[in-house]
Amino acid sequence: MSNQPLETSREDANAIRALAMDAVEKSKSGHPGMPMGMADVASVLFRSFLKFDAADPHWPDRDRFVLSAGHGSMLIYALGYLVGYPGLDIEDLKNFRQLGSKTAGHPEYGHAPGIETTTGPLGQGLAMAVGMAMAERLQAARFGDDLIDHFTYVLAGDGCLMEGVSHEAIDLAGHLRLGKLILLWDDNEISIDGPTSLSTSTDQAARFAASGWHVQKVDGHDFAQITQAIAAAKADPRPSMIACKTIIGFGAPNKQGKESAHGAPLGPAEVAASREALGWGHHPFEIPAPLLEGWRTAGRRGAPAHADWRRRLEASGRRGEFEEFLKGDVAADVAGPLATFREELARDKPKLATRKSSEMALGVINGATGATIGGSADLTHSNYTITKGMGSVGPESFSGRYIHYGVREFGMAAAMNGIALHGGFAPYGGTFLVFSDYARGAIRLSALMKLRVIYVLTHDSIGLGEDGPTHQPVEHLASLRALPNLNVFRPADAIETAECWELALAAKETPSALSLSRQNLPTLDRPVNENLSARGAYVLIEPSGGRDVTLLATGSEVAIALEAARLLDVLGKRAAVVSMPSFELFAAQPAEYRAQVLGSAPRVGVEAAVRFGWDRWLGENGVFVGMSDFGASGPAEALYEHFNITPQTVAQAAAALL
Amino acid sequence: MSNQPLETSREDANAIRALAMDAVEKSKSGHPGMPMGMADVASVLFRSFLKFDAADPHWPDRDRFVLSAGHGSMLIYALGYLVGYPGLDIEDLKNFRQLGSKTAGHPEYGHAPGIETTTGPLGQGLAMAVGMAMAERLQAARFGDDLIDHFTYVLAGDGCLMEGVSHEAIDLAGHLRLGKLILLWDDNEISIDGPTSLSTSTDQAARFAASGWHVQKVDGHDFAQITQAIAAAKADPRPSMIACKTIIGFGAPNKQGKESAHGAPLGPAEVAASREALGWGHHPFEIPAPLLEGWRTAGRRGAPAHADWRRRLEASGRRGEFEEFLKGDVAADVAGPLATFREELARDKPKLATRKSSEMALGVINGATGATIGGSADLTHSNYTITKGMGSVGPESFSGRYIHYGVREFGMAAAMNGIALHGGFAPYGGTFLVFSDYARGAIRLSALMKLRVIYVLTHDSIGLGEDGPTHQPVEHLASLRALPNLNVFRPADAIETAECWELALAAKETPSALSLSRQNLPTLDRPVNENLSARGAYVLIEPSGGRDVTLLATGSEVAIALEAARLLDVLGKRAAVVSMPSFELFAAQPAEYRAQVLGSAPRVGVEAAVRFGWDRWLGENGVFVGMSDFGASGPAEALYEHFNITPQTVAQAAAALL
Repeated sequence: MSNQPLETSREDANAIRALAMDAVEKSKSGHPGMPMGMADVASVLFRSFLKFDAADPHWPDRDRFVLSAGHGSMLIYALGYLVGYPGLDIEDLKNFRQLGSKTAGHPEYGHAPGIETTTGPLGQGLAMAVGMAMAERLQAARFGDDLIDHFTYVLAGDGCLMEGVSHEAIDLAGHLRLGKLILLWDDNEISIDGPTSLSTSTDQAARFAASGWHVQKVDGHDFAQITQAIAAAKADPRPSMIACKTIIGFGAPNKQGKESAHGAPLGPAEVAASREALGWGHHPFEIPAPLLEGWRTAGRRGAPAHADWRRRLEASGRRGEFEEFLKGDVAADVAGPLATFREELARDKPKLATRKSSEMALGVINGATGATIGGSADLTHSNYTITKGMGSVGPESFSGRYIHYGVREFGMAAAMNGIALHGGFAPYGGTFLVFSDYARGAIRLSALMKLRVIYVLTHDSIGLGEDGPTHQPVEHLASLRALPNLNVFRPADAIETAECWELALAAKETPSALSLSRQNLPTLDRPVNENLSARGAYVLIEPSGGRDVTLLATGSEVAIALEAARLLDVLGKRAAVVSMPSFELFAAQPAEYRAQVLGSAPRVGVEAAVRFGWDRWLGENGVFVGMSDFGASGPAEALYEHFNITPQTVAQAAAALL
Repeated sequence: MSNQPLETSREDANAIRALAMDAVEKSKSGHPGMPMGMADVASVLFRSFLKFDAADPHWPDRDRFVLSAGHGSMLIYALGYLVGYPGLDIEDLKNFRQLGSKTAGHPEYGHAPGIETTTGPLGQGLAMAVGMAMAERLQAARFGDDLIDHFTYVLAGDGCLMEGVSHEAIDLAGHLRLGKLILLWDDNEISIDGPTSLSTSTDQAARFAASGWHVQKVDGHDFAQITQAIAAAKADPRPSMIACKTIIGFGAPNKQGKESAHGAPLGPAEVAASREALGWGHHPFEIPAPLLEGWRTAGRRGAPAHADWRRRLEASGRRGEFEEFLKGDVAADVAGPLATFREELARDKPKLATRKSSEMALGVINGATGATIGGSADLTHSNYTITKGMGSVGPESFSGRYIHYGVREFGMAAAMNGIALHGGFAPYGGTFLVFSDYARGAIRLSALMKLRVIYVLTHDSIGLGEDGPTHQPVEHLASLRALPNLNVFRPADAIETAECWELALAAKETPSALSLSRQNLPTLDRPVNENLSARGAYVLIEPSGGRDVTLLATGSEVAIALEAARLLDVLGKRAAVVSMPSFELFAAQPAEYRAQVLGSAPRVGVEAAVRFGWDRWLGENGVFVGMSDFGASGPAEALYEHFNITPQTVAQAAAALL
């Protein structure tokens, strides 16, 4: 059953233009230029090509449309209203950019139907679209092309293509030959500062071709050219870029083609002049019934294909399996095997780097579920992110589960967001903790969009040794902990590592950052019948007869705190030791539990990182043993001595408090 | 006076190979593959082309050499020792990667001579080299090509070219036609995970050509080809990329050409086999005298040119001016005019957004010194970073002072690092605070290298309004404050903004981040005879009769705290109000001053951002009024109400404490 294409007229596109300028005008802020410039291209896409059924924005085999140039949000809202997405009414457009409305300044995932991802931070929409296109192939490899066979369209502007992450995305997409990814470039030659000739001279067509893309150029206001190009893009086996030469603010007679059309209301006079120029004689927010009906027909265009797809799903006999997959409930599958694994660890007490324990935990996890998609930004053999039998994903092979993302931390993180958004899969990817900086823009979007994306961040302190301060994170735990809705885990041993993995997979609306050591750590002596890391912090050692001092530590420093407690014991001082694998989970515990763990004795915090953020747990008179500046190059043991993060200094600091 | 080129033999290059494998072997860690692979190319460069005088590594008109693939640090250490940089002895090479040595795991700026910049975080060396090449042209435009006329060479690997920042750098360099920038690409087809074909298929030659670069391909082990290519690159008016096809670990018979040669010692057997294969019959760290003498001759090769340059400098009559410029002592030039400006502000009491006050301060600063080089990542008219008469920098025009960096936050930050490293100039660049995330990798290097780079970060809270959570920073102040050696300033009004600019320019070894509001803020009522922001925090209102409560606030929330104090006063509660423009400077004050400012009354912190990091100032029972999650899209006033950051909520929180 096909999607019958609908003809597009200038008037159809002008409906978008009018809604965009009216909404921006009413909200007294926003970006009319892009929606007005790309209205013709977007109209052709939605009326003739995009496979969707407005009645069900969540149809799993729908084409994806990503507005990478997210400031042009009125384009997506106007389209959503015109095609008739349920729950997106003209009132929502009138409330553009108002508090509590579905129509935020930039498209927010989960706010309005048809928004496949939050965009606005430039370049990332494109990079997430690459992830979606990868997920499409990964899903198809598992459920068949008969059930999974859709395109990912992304609309990007000059800014998106200037951002570095665009290179990572374009290179990766070309390499993997993601032929069902189609990029519509709004080639309007205008950026905020003025003409793009102020800052770029790259021949984008040649650039994309260099990365293996199929490239076309069209007049973005010529319906026939647009139609022909999208059809050719669909037919070509390579990812496609269509350079759409457009006039920003098309239709606004005094502002079109200028940066003044980009990011501010046109003003009443120019809006009136635009109505005149476009031949649009209707009131603000008014779409003539026949025009609206035409658009609504476009919104229903995919219904037969959708129904047909439902029949195929039923006939496949895999409906239950497919729906289970989409739910992504991995936790239940891995809980049992991970519990057994923890018991083995408690018995064997191995001394392992937590990056190595993570590999072992992943071995269990990847054996228990097929939902995980692993990868690394070219540090596979340092992050230990691959496990036996995963199989590498390559240009023609998507049945594998492991992605060699290349030296592209940001692109990897954004692609993982795209994979998570596409549904079902639980992506994880590795790099060094210090290079989470490179990926930070995308980690933020994982958190903002509430996506289960797992960052495997190894080499998590001066404990990495000789690579020196460029590679030694000192501020990264703090900067990640500062991010809302991100669980930062710093496990102290193999058992906690397995626990943190379990928690990360179970947190379906929260991304996780696993901070893992390069150096070996002993297995802690503790019960394993409960996931103690789930409480964020717990008492490892409670001295009999009450506490003189409480030592709080995370990750590799827990062993140091334990040794310090022994030294203090020799001095006749009773020290409790608390392991704190997650500040966030601990903060979410009842006050009573927190008070019990923290105790009323003076506290010493120990972490091979900066103190910033620790004061909350230390109390007014607490002390901190850690880093106060960047690290240095040298063997790990020498560095711990040099920076005074040792059992002796912890014991001394504790003793000085008493 | 020319630099007489020296012939290069394989044995000359093998000296680098031997030192690299011996040092990595001795330190039991490091990366032998790159130095061994690129030894031939680097030898030709240093012996026949690079303009330098080993006796004076700081000669201002030297060619710059940047090792963007910083993990190959032994290449630069071996070269430094061979050419005879003062203070880099064979002992230093024997101490490779040991604590306290000059030869850190990755090249650290300021540790060993000849290291123009810290590298290791991939891609950034290239992006900093672009900044250096820009600085060369900017300096030449001021002091003449007779005094400033040198090349910037950068050695980059596959990883550098996969990183997104490489795109930003390449695009910008091509656009500005930086003809004296020459990139030597170590095209060895190997990355850490394995062959680069695992993750990239980009035709790099075509990619660079698309951005306006001159491109050549050579056999990286053929001296004649390398020589010819560098000569051609120098002659071409475009920036040049030379793809050097090399064998990673060249000379190690069983590991060359494989990823196993990349990042670990070869091992004693393979080192022995390599000696055999290379015909290198010398002991570890032993360079035969004639060979060493040849290299030392190369190190003296530039001495006549250097002497000639000194004569030209003298003859120009501008030696004093030039040396003053290089010192970069801007503070003295701007202090007087800024003091006058502050007095005017105290008199006029304007109500301005601090981004606007920043523009005014910049008007004063840019009028008082020529050292500042401004710019923005395509947000000039939002960041307010340009001032009258600055003149835009363009392909043929470097007499201007304003750089349109394009939508390239990371590339901008790295370029600013390069400009600062090159000497003399005080670069500043703008973007939105939220997009400091994109630039974070380079901000970290500014801090690590102790560079005076000033980040102008506007739209610094939910106060930016309708653009919504993608554009509203909530965690960024915390994540920047967590970074060692970065001064984060959040001025509350126009006076503080001028003060913070003065402090940023005076901090020659510390980068600064200025967090500035989009919304208007009243001018505070306070003395201007002293730069009060220099103390980091100070008492704005001290109630007579002692404090019941102390309100601590920064930036746009200081006005809210002042209003709250008035509300409390009505209730008969005496509130002190403290403005805290910089946590870092306040933390550096004597304990006595800090105690006096913070007082002993209960405290309330107010900042439209997350609490993370505030507990240090709030004390155990303090409360915080701010954000606990991401923002929302809506008008600024509505958002402040919605998120309960108002004078009423602050007063209520304070009253509840009492």
